[in-house]
Amino acid sequence: MEKVADVQCFGGQQQRFKHVSLVLNCDMHFSLFLPPQAKNAKVPVLVWLSGLTCTDENFVTKAGAQRVAAELGIALLAPDTSPRGEGVADDEAYDAGMGAGFYVNATQAPWAEHYQMYDYIVQELPALLAREVQALDLKRMSIMGHSMGGHGALVIGLRNVDTYQSISAFAPICAPSQCPWGEKTLGYYLGQDRSTWQDYDASVLLASAKKSIPIRVDQGLADNFLTTQLMPEKLIAAAPQNYPLQVLQHKGYDHSYFFIASFIEAHIRFHAEFLNQ
Amino acid sequence: MEKVADVQCFGGQQQRFKHVSLVLNCDMHFSLFLPPQAKNAKVPVLVWLSGLTCTDENFVTKAGAQRVAAELGIALLAPDTSPRGEGVADDEAYDAGMGAGFYVNATQAPWAEHYQMYDYIVQELPALLAREVQALDLKRMSIMGHSMGGHGALVIGLRNVDTYQSISAFAPICAPSQCPWGEKTLGYYLGQDRSTWQDYDASVLLASAKKSIPIRVDQGLADNFLTTQLMPEKLIAAAPQNYPLQVLQHKGYDHSYFFIASFIEAHIRFHAEFLNQ
Repeated sequence: MEKVADVQCFGGQQQRFKHVSLVLNCDMHFSLFLPPQAKNAKVPVLVWLSGLTCTDENFVTKAGAQRVAAELGIALLAPDTSPRGEGVADDEAYDAGMGAGFYVNATQAPWAEHYQMYDYIVQELPALLAREVQALDLKRMSIMGHSMGGHGALVIGLRNVDTYQSISAFAPICAPSQCPWGEKTLGYYLGQDRSTWQDYDASVLLASAKKSIPIRVDQGLADNFLTTQLMPEKLIAAAPQNYPLQVLQHKGYDHSYFFIASFIEAHIRFHAEFLNQ
Repeated sequence: MEKVADVQCFGGQQQRFKHVSLVLNCDMHFSLFLPPQAKNAKVPVLVWLSGLTCTDENFVTKAGAQRVAAELGIALLAPDTSPRGEGVADDEAYDAGMGAGFYVNATQAPWAEHYQMYDYIVQELPALLAREVQALDLKRMSIMGHSMGGHGALVIGLRNVDTYQSISAFAPICAPSQCPWGEKTLGYYLGQDRSTWQDYDASVLLASAKKSIPIRVDQGLADNFLTTQLMPEKLIAAAPQNYPLQVLQHKGYDHSYFFIASFIEAHIRFHAEFLNQ
C-alpha cells in the first residue's frame, strides 16, 4: 500500500493510497480522511460508496464532508467504484464496466475476472486498513453512499448487520432488479437468472431482514432518475413493520453533489450516534 | 444573459450563466449562488476570484461555501479567470493566457484585444447583474480570492474602497512585480515598463493606501509557492501603521482547495460583519 497524497484539511489529513487488490486482480486507489482525533486515539470509520462514473475522488473534493467528520472524530473511507486498468473488461456506456461496479461479485465472463466489488468493500479493504492504518477502529464502522453507491451501502449494510452500525443513502437505487440500470448491469455481471440478483437488491433484502440496522435515506424530488431508476417507494413498502428506516424527501433537490453537500452533515451526525457509542 | 444551470443547494440556488462580454470581446460564463433569503429580500454579494487554471466552477464545486452563505444570506459570485474561446490569445504554459487573466487590463498585443479582466470584474459584470438579477444588492459587495485570485481581490478591493466593504484572500500573490508568475505575465499583458505594473501590485497599492478597507489573508505554511510566488511578508511590510490587515498563518496547510475549504467559513463570516451592517 503506497500513499500517493496527504493534504491537511480541517485539522485532519486527506490521504490517497494505491494498492494491489488480490480480490479485484488489479491496482486500486482509495481515499481516506483521518480526523484530527486520529493522532491520539483510534477513530471509527464511515465508508462512502460513490455512484456511476465516479472514482474515489469525487466525494472527497465535492461533498464537504471533512468538516463534520473532523468535528466528530470519524474517519471517511472512499473506495473507487470498480476495478480499473488495461485488461479490465469495460462497456461503452457509463452504466456498466469501469466506474460502474455496482458493488457485486460478478459470476459471468468477461466480468468475473475483476468485478468483485462486494468482496473488495466488505472484506479486502477493511482487512488491509486494519493491518496498515493503526488509527482506525474497524470494529466501529458504518456505511453510506449515493445512487449506485446508495444501493451498495444498503445491500452491504443489510447483509452485514454485525459489521456496520448504521446505513445511509442519498438517492439510492432501491430496487435494482426492477430498473433499467440494474436490469442491464446485473444481467451483465450475474447473468439472466434473476434469482441470483436478489442478494443485491436492497428492497428484497429489507423485506426479509431478520435483524434491524438503522437506515436513513434522503431523496430529492427534482431528481431526474427518481421514478425510473431509484424508486424509494419500493424500499418503504419492503420495510418490516417498525423497522428503523427513515426516508426523507426534499422538494427541489436533484441528483447532484449539490444535493449531497446540502445534507451530508445530517448523515454524518446520524452515523455518529451509532459510531461514537 | 442565458441561464445554463440552476440547481438547489442548501435551500438556495446554485446557478450558472452565459453572456456576451463587450469588455472582453467574447462569450463568458459565471456562477452565482443565491441564498434562500434572496427569495424575499435583496442580498449582498461576495465575489470570489479563482486562481490559475480555474474556471468559474472550481470554487462552486470544491470550497463548500454555499452552506455558510445560505446561513448568512449572502450571494456568491464566481467569475471565470480569463476571456475564453477561439481567437483569444493563449500561451502554452498554465500561468499566462486562458485561465490566467491576472485581473488586469492588458495593453500589449496580442493580449489587449480580449484580456481586460479588471474592467470586466469591476464594471461590466456588476452592471450586468444590477440589470438582470433583482435579488442582488450591489451596493453591498465584498471581494475575496485564491492565489492569482487573491492578488485580484486585493488589487481590485484596494483600488475601489468605496465599492467593496471588505477584502480577503487565501494564499494571494502579494507582490506580483517581484515574483516569477507576475514578472512573466504582467510583462506579457502590460509590457516591460514596470512602472505600469504598480497599479496591479497589492503591496504597492497598500503602501500608499489613503483610505482603509478591512483585509484578511490566510496562508498555509506547507504551501509550495509560499516563498517564491506569494510572499505575504511583503504585504505585511507594506501596510501603513494601524491598517486593518490581518494575516493568519496555518501550519501544515498547502495551496489546495482543501486549505480553502478549511477556512472558507471564517472568511465568509469576516465579510458578513461588513456586508450585513
